[in-house]
Amino acid sequence: MPGYIKAENKRNLADRLDRIEGQARGIKRMVDREAYCIEILTQISSLVAASEKVASILIKDHLDHCVREAIENGEDPGEKTEELKAAIERFMRI
Amino acid sequence: MPGYIKAENKRNLADRLDRIEGQARGIKRMVDREAYCIEILTQISSLVAASEKVASILIKDHLDHCVREAIENGEDPGEKTEELKAAIERFMRI
Amino acid sequence: MPGYIKAENKRNLADRLDRIEGQARGIKRMVDREAYCIEILTQISSLVAASEKVASILIKDHLDHCVREAIENGEDPGEKTEELKAAIERFMRI
Amino acid sequence: MPGYIKAENKRNLADRLDRIEGQARGIKRMVDREAYCIEILTQISSLVAASEKVASILIKDHLDHCVREAIENGEDPGEKTEELKAAIERFMRI
Repeated sequence: MPGYIKAENKRNLADRLDRIEGQARGIKRMVDREAYCIEILTQISSLVAASEKVASILIKDHLDHCVREAIENGEDPGEKTEELKAAIERFMRI
Repeated sequence: MPGYIKAENKRNLADRLDRIEGQARGIKRMVDREAYCIEILTQISSLVAASEKVASILIKDHLDHCVREAIENGEDPGEKTEELKAAIERFMRI
Repeated sequence: MPGYIKAENKRNLADRLDRIEGQARGIKRMVDREAYCIEILTQISSLVAASEKVASILIKDHLDHCVREAIENGEDPGEKTEELKAAIERFMRI
Repeated sequence: MPGYIKAENKRNLADRLDRIEGQARGIKRMVDREAYCIEILTQISSLVAASEKVASILIKDHLDHCVREAIENGEDPGEKTEELKAAIERFMRI
């Protein structure tokens, strides 16, 4: 499977995850100095949206690479699409 | 594209959507008789989860049929996976 | 507790729930005639957003009425805020 | 407003945010070594759930402290509940 993340996406994803890590640290400082609750909540929703953006980039890479490869190799992609469905459901409330 | 929804899923989806329609009607009655707010919220989160379950079944069907067909026909599935990524993002907060 | 939903909101909520019921019916028809999967997903995410809007209106009414009343009556609102927290969590993925 | 976060929650929240920061770092390493996409997605959904748990703890603290204080001081809590409603909506898809 190595190689499935496009090189251009790898740097992009690393940058996004660096920012998410920094957001988590920033939120901890806000809690520590008891910043106004609503402002902390805004930062958390921003961290969540940033994390879900990373997930959607990976989902697209997975579709374009792993699912595609299975189909091109004549394999039944049913197992791959089933595990992707399960992964997507974890981002819904089900 | 017709035929992409598996017959067994079509009945399943119709039943689920009937229940969702009934849930919406039930919630309207709860609002009308001013049922306890928390109980109405519980019913709404149940309707939301039921709707997202329908979405995840369609996503799987789409992967197994439309995306697969594009790949098997030697088409670039990039457009199809891009529009699926956009659809999934609408179920996230981004 | 009756009376906790503001009269102006009651009509507003009933209208929104009528539309949600209509959306569920429309989605069932789309499935029946096998509309393009991505378009069905778009309608489902719209139904989900409409349902969560109803939830957020009820949460605000609950805060303004039930939680407030408990506090004004000198009751400990802890139980009310705890059940509201649990209800909100059902709209998150936890 | 300082003091609105209960001392017992402050340590609890700091611990949770430390773990979230560590999860972000772990996910970056997984991307770097190209761990299997589905496993990365599972870690991201876990980070999102952990972040939303922090949000729900803060929402409860805000209700028990800020909203309560406004009501006990005879202030109209409408502004506070309105901004809380907006914050909660950012965790929904609306």
